[in-house]
Amino acid sequence: MSETLVLHEYAASGNCYKVRLTAALLGIELERREYDIMKGETRTPEFLATVNANGRIPVLQIGDRFIPESNAACHYLADGSNLIPGDRFGHADMLRWMFWEQYNHEPNIATLRFWTGWVGPDKLSDAQRLQVPLKREAGNAALKLMNDHLRDRVWFVGKAMSLADVCLFAYTHVADGGGFDLGPYPAVLEWIERIKGQPGYLAMDA
Amino acid sequence: MSETLVLHEYAASGNCYKVRLTAALLGIELERREYDIMKGETRTPEFLATVNANGRIPVLQIGDRFIPESNAACHYLADGSNLIPGDRFGHADMLRWMFWEQYNHEPNIATLRFWTGWVGPDKLSDAQRLQVPLKREAGNAALKLMNDHLRDRVWFVGKAMSLADVCLFAYTHVADGGGFDLGPYPAVLEWIERIKGQPGYLAMDA
Repeated sequence: MSETLVLHEYAASGNCYKVRLTAALLGIELERREYDIMKGETRTPEFLATVNANGRIPVLQIGDRFIPESNAACHYLADGSNLIPGDRFGHADMLRWMFWEQYNHEPNIATLRFWTGWVGPDKLSDAQRLQVPLKREAGNAALKLMNDHLRDRVWFVGKAMSLADVCLFAYTHVADGGGFDLGPYPAVLEWIERIKGQPGYLAMDA
Repeated sequence: MSETLVLHEYAASGNCYKVRLTAALLGIELERREYDIMKGETRTPEFLATVNANGRIPVLQIGDRFIPESNAACHYLADGSNLIPGDRFGHADMLRWMFWEQYNHEPNIATLRFWTGWVGPDKLSDAQRLQVPLKREAGNAALKLMNDHLRDRVWFVGKAMSLADVCLFAYTHVADGGGFDLGPYPAVLEWIERIKGQPGYLAMDA
């Protein structure tokens, strides 16, 4: 890629890590620009006007153009690589897991990690407190669905690792930070080790 | 497409409508199979075992294979068509809006429509009731972001209609069912009319 790639991020966010991991697996270099989300650094007028009107990270900057949304940024980086299946069904099936991740997995597993480790259990609003048991149940349902799917498969889609694995890995492998126990999901635990053993693998805190 | 395409759906769901609208715009024929989600027809052991372990519709069936997740089903149908930008940035930018739709738009605008028209305001749980004002605010923020984006653009991505428009249109054009007033978003209202005027356009209740 000829244009400079800059990742606007908060390093401890799993959504940002997805983009770094995709780049690392593909040997793509990224410049990193850190924002402290706890200090509102992604809600400044300048950030909203130039990087992302939605006030969120990650955002992948390609020259003077921007791609918000973690899974879309991963798709940009991996386009044309072996992390995206080349066939019509495989491509859609990969996206199916990535949409599922953003709708059924992230709002439960990542949100409980954020409420636990960043907001603090005693600082939750009433609306948040009432959602904790619902998110706990939905998060475990997501982990069970992943475990059932992986029971007789090596990767989420087809016969090779794809962005579906990368994007689901990000918050799954740190689910304990939200109080999730992966013990009951042995196929998920094996898959996590499989990803950690891939050439180019990059740890979240690297 | 040589294999039979079956849409497993609940017709009043905007997520299901996205898939019908994509097919209609592309002149693709779909068989339709209706499930009553209010009677749990997508949670039966048979549905979970054969159609979607996640117990949700829509699911696009292609021969004996299945694609759950509305936006992934749309991607399958539109692959190779002019509803998906052919360039790397455009493709990722389209997916950016589709991921944003599932994370920032649907859980607010579609959920309030569902709670209003299906669950019933007096039947909400405490956790749901406390979320209503938050979802109202987040839904309006999503509509404002769309309106700002469309102020100097005809379509969400590049110079042509894409799946980003189709997928955002589905719940936006019936947002009044969740108590959202589109009056303050004139660019969104114009864009809605633009989509309704497209060749092959299919109404939600058609």
